[in-house]
Amino acid sequence: MTKLLDQIQKTNDIRKIPAEDLPELAEEIREFLVNKVSVTGGHLASNLGTVELTMALHLTLDLPKDKIIWDVGHQSYTHKILTGRKDGFENLRQFGGMSGFPKRAESDCDAFDTGHSSTSISAALGMVHARQLRGENNTIVAVIGDGSITGGLAYEAMNNVSKLTSNLIIILNDNNMSISENVGGISTYLNDIRTSSGYIHLRDKVYYSINDNLPGVVRGIRKTKNSLKQLMVPGMYFEQMGITYLGPVDGHNIRAMQRAIERAKHVNKAVLIHVCTKKGKGYTPAEKHPSRFHGTSPFEIETGLPKNPKKKAAYTDVFSTVMIKLAQRDPKIVAITAAMADGVGLKRYRNIYPDRFFDVGIAEGHAVTFAAGLAAGGMKPVVAIYSTFLQRAYDQIVHDVCMQNLPVIFAIDRAGLVGEDGETHQGVFDLSYLSTIPNLTVMAPKNKWELSDMLKFAVAQGTPCAIRYPRGEAYDGLREYREKIALGQAEVIFEESGILLYAIGSMVKTAEEVHARLAELGIPSSLVNARFVTPDEALLDRMLPAHSLLVTMEENVFSGGFGEHVIACAQRNDWKCDILPVAVPDRFIEHGAPAKLKEKYGIDAEHIAAKILERTGRA
Amino acid sequence: MTKLLDQIQKTNDIRKIPAEDLPELAEEIREFLVNKVSVTGGHLASNLGTVELTMALHLTLDLPKDKIIWDVGHQSYTHKILTGRKDGFENLRQFGGMSGFPKRAESDCDAFDTGHSSTSISAALGMVHARQLRGENNTIVAVIGDGSITGGLAYEAMNNVSKLTSNLIIILNDNNMSISENVGGISTYLNDIRTSSGYIHLRDKVYYSINDNLPGVVRGIRKTKNSLKQLMVPGMYFEQMGITYLGPVDGHNIRAMQRAIERAKHVNKAVLIHVCTKKGKGYTPAEKHPSRFHGTSPFEIETGLPKNPKKKAAYTDVFSTVMIKLAQRDPKIVAITAAMADGVGLKRYRNIYPDRFFDVGIAEGHAVTFAAGLAAGGMKPVVAIYSTFLQRAYDQIVHDVCMQNLPVIFAIDRAGLVGEDGETHQGVFDLSYLSTIPNLTVMAPKNKWELSDMLKFAVAQGTPCAIRYPRGEAYDGLREYREKIALGQAEVIFEESGILLYAIGSMVKTAEEVHARLAELGIPSSLVNARFVTPDEALLDRMLPAHSLLVTMEENVFSGGFGEHVIACAQRNDWKCDILPVAVPDRFIEHGAPAKLKEKYGIDAEHIAAKILERTGRA
Repeated sequence: MTKLLDQIQKTNDIRKIPAEDLPELAEEIREFLVNKVSVTGGHLASNLGTVELTMALHLTLDLPKDKIIWDVGHQSYTHKILTGRKDGFENLRQFGGMSGFPKRAESDCDAFDTGHSSTSISAALGMVHARQLRGENNTIVAVIGDGSITGGLAYEAMNNVSKLTSNLIIILNDNNMSISENVGGISTYLNDIRTSSGYIHLRDKVYYSINDNLPGVVRGIRKTKNSLKQLMVPGMYFEQMGITYLGPVDGHNIRAMQRAIERAKHVNKAVLIHVCTKKGKGYTPAEKHPSRFHGTSPFEIETGLPKNPKKKAAYTDVFSTVMIKLAQRDPKIVAITAAMADGVGLKRYRNIYPDRFFDVGIAEGHAVTFAAGLAAGGMKPVVAIYSTFLQRAYDQIVHDVCMQNLPVIFAIDRAGLVGEDGETHQGVFDLSYLSTIPNLTVMAPKNKWELSDMLKFAVAQGTPCAIRYPRGEAYDGLREYREKIALGQAEVIFEESGILLYAIGSMVKTAEEVHARLAELGIPSSLVNARFVTPDEALLDRMLPAHSLLVTMEENVFSGGFGEHVIACAQRNDWKCDILPVAVPDRFIEHGAPAKLKEKYGIDAEHIAAKILERTGRA
Repeated sequence: MTKLLDQIQKTNDIRKIPAEDLPELAEEIREFLVNKVSVTGGHLASNLGTVELTMALHLTLDLPKDKIIWDVGHQSYTHKILTGRKDGFENLRQFGGMSGFPKRAESDCDAFDTGHSSTSISAALGMVHARQLRGENNTIVAVIGDGSITGGLAYEAMNNVSKLTSNLIIILNDNNMSISENVGGISTYLNDIRTSSGYIHLRDKVYYSINDNLPGVVRGIRKTKNSLKQLMVPGMYFEQMGITYLGPVDGHNIRAMQRAIERAKHVNKAVLIHVCTKKGKGYTPAEKHPSRFHGTSPFEIETGLPKNPKKKAAYTDVFSTVMIKLAQRDPKIVAITAAMADGVGLKRYRNIYPDRFFDVGIAEGHAVTFAAGLAAGGMKPVVAIYSTFLQRAYDQIVHDVCMQNLPVIFAIDRAGLVGEDGETHQGVFDLSYLSTIPNLTVMAPKNKWELSDMLKFAVAQGTPCAIRYPRGEAYDGLREYREKIALGQAEVIFEESGILLYAIGSMVKTAEEVHARLAELGIPSSLVNARFVTPDEALLDRMLPAHSLLVTMEENVFSGGFGEHVIACAQRNDWKCDILPVAVPDRFIEHGAPAKLKEKYGIDAEHIAAKILERTGRA
């Protein structure tokens, strides 16, 4: 059924839909989302949860004049539908197709690009001040989840909104089950009294009466159990921050949200609307397994099962298994994740070692300094964070871990091209930003066994170590090459002559393919697995005389990366060998399947082999 | 008078001092601190404020078994005195002398190295969990200031302490004047009732009665004005976070603090003691000007005036002047600082353009994303943050500014060796971590006029730009060389032959000295001012044929820095010229005067000239 959806062709078309038909439009949008995402893959649960919230925003705001900043951005699909981008879902997240995140370049209704968590309030506050300085009067809304609000960045922003004398609307999209149960009688009551002028009068009366008679004494004491979450009902935490609180509002009741947003617009300061939504709403498999349907690959609609079930173990699975083994052997091993137990592969570990597992929430900076504290206390912490999210903790790695040379291990998943998530998630900077840091040993495994060996090596090492590995299937080739890991030493896979392929991490597999292609053409080549981002000077010094071309290969940008270090090493040693560096170009890389992107940027085996032939005058 | 201080020779000696003599010991410590810091320079106001607090900690804790983590660490002087390091003050912060910050390598009583803000609660929480896992039972204390607690990292940590079932003491050292006035009758009263068992009983009764009868309703409403500060009295904010609140306590009353700490030890969860202190306490000039005596150069004790008044303008002063001019001309210019208006030179600007000035508190991440929001809203934000503090915002620069190519200008002060503050403050990584980021133009000026020119260039450019410049006097030489700034183009200062000195930022002055030294020996050399961290390929290509040695010079680590980029550029262009890269070595650099450090690490004119002579076979 797309009777109503067919009428949505461009921004603000939703306003033409009669109010009584809106619930049906919501259903059509849900059906559309399930149909499309089942084919392309993408974020589903969060988008099903925010259909009505987005509709209410579009009904009350005037886009593109008004601005919506979608925190993290993976919940913006309905917004894309309502802003004339329905057709984009044919190629959602595909190479050359529509992005799964808000993009200013894609629509004038996308006010701010997002992808990482907790940025929306900061960005919105910037826009509010810009609006004031320019004397404009549009409405600016940040939509942030209950997870994102645990990030320190969101707190820093909230700490700064209290001075506002101008409107800023923060919509807290709360999809935690235990909170949405609170929606009901008492909440409706609270919302009514808090948003009515009568209530505001009452509140001021209470405040002044307390203040006049007993300054500094607070009458009500409310003990909270274990998280910020509890503090939000009924909003005292935000009121203390100087933010007017409205809610909770039922996030699937369009009219209730329209009312709340209209009321919020009239507050001359920061105002937070607490909206309770259900992740996966309307599609039973996603309601039951919101985590599995957070980001999903193509699936069968009837069953919710993946269309192409995974066959081989991912690096994440290997990490998962090895962590349990390490913890069995050594009681000092502890594991830390920043709200990603599942994503980084620590779910099984958590079940077996709950006391030695810490999920700190979306708080990468704290995760790292907390790990430094654990290490200073005699533990051996393993911090598992995705490559681009670890960028949030760069200073903590420098200042708290490496400066004190504390034995913290960084297990960095999603390092390299991650594909469909695009720019914000491509883990192509870590070899560069990590290799600026003294005392840190940076490694990347060639295959699944080497990830295991490197983790064990890092534990034995007792100094800061980082191991980066890509998303997806772990390479299970080259099993017979398993030379013991030694600090700074590369591993020789094939020793021939002429061309030396010097590859790190995932690119060893590519180098193996290049080696085979060259061999087919009768061209010999050596293959060295770098293992460490710091070049193995001794090995290169020994091997290079038999070679005329050194090819460095990495799934990282060139600037500050592995290849640049090798070139500097060659210069320092006065090696006369020609060098061909293969790396991700120094630019932000768009979304698309990794294979497609590697082809486009010339870092697949075919293009590398062609470059080698050209460089050696054989093309 | 050092009668009592003489008895303090090693850790825990303070326990031998009779209680009635403790206030006198505090006075002796103050006199000692003023005397020593007046000679060596150092942090004074914060240390004068924490004398009694530190004494109370040493009297109630058992060091080194118990652990104190000093947030930021510049308030640890009394702690150093009380742990056998009195003699170290002779050479405080001098090359080879005692550090001005806690250092594990310096004493077993220094539990965690600090220097940057807001790390202490995270680190302490890590140590508490380590203690629990190891079955130990020492006391762990984080001492954090009211400024540091505005950092997102501290919030992320507080959000994680609520689950604790073990003791963790957080001492909030609140030295804001408006708060210390609150110390008095009502506060003593509050402290008494909150820490007595009768009160805890009462509190639980209130909680359960509210919970049983009206779940979700909070009775007391307290409106706050404009900052986190107000929330802390009487601690409800912390109670909501699951942290028991004690205080406020008079931070100059040793007995009151001892009592509070003893009580806090018996709480099986996180407990915060709110201590009110006066910055600069006991030394009138520091009490009157706590900001000037935060970090001070040597001064006359009687007057409080600097012994060696500054003669030349610092880069900070130049920035200060230019910002006002830029703002005069362009109403879109706005300035952002993270709690450093004075340090970065925005005080005068703030007075003239209060509406276009934003101090966001210790919140570098927010500062950058907020700037991105301002830029998306049509403003031209200039974010002024010290080099190492900007490390806190690496991801925000990547993800929020550069990925959207927004016109944010980063004015990066303290880039290069800062000297006496040491490891945690040496700004020697920024050229590396910034040059990993696509779309970002990274510059460094050779002298004061060029800083001005670069700021104007950056404003005109309309894309993300970073300008880094060192602490201290701005170079006022080479005034006649002021070629118009053009994107990516270096500036030729002297064009001769043989040796090409290719220097960036502060090293242009050093290169000028090297040039003169070589000239004295009859050796010609060319001097090129790089301006941009990206090598000027065209210029080098034109000039190199006349040169046999290219010397790159930067005040940044080698890894990922300017020199490495030049070497990669040479390799790409197949330039046959020999290259001598001069850079800060890839390690953490200890404290000491910059000139001393440059000498030690061979990056002063004398050593560079000697290296050139050696490399060219003239030595």
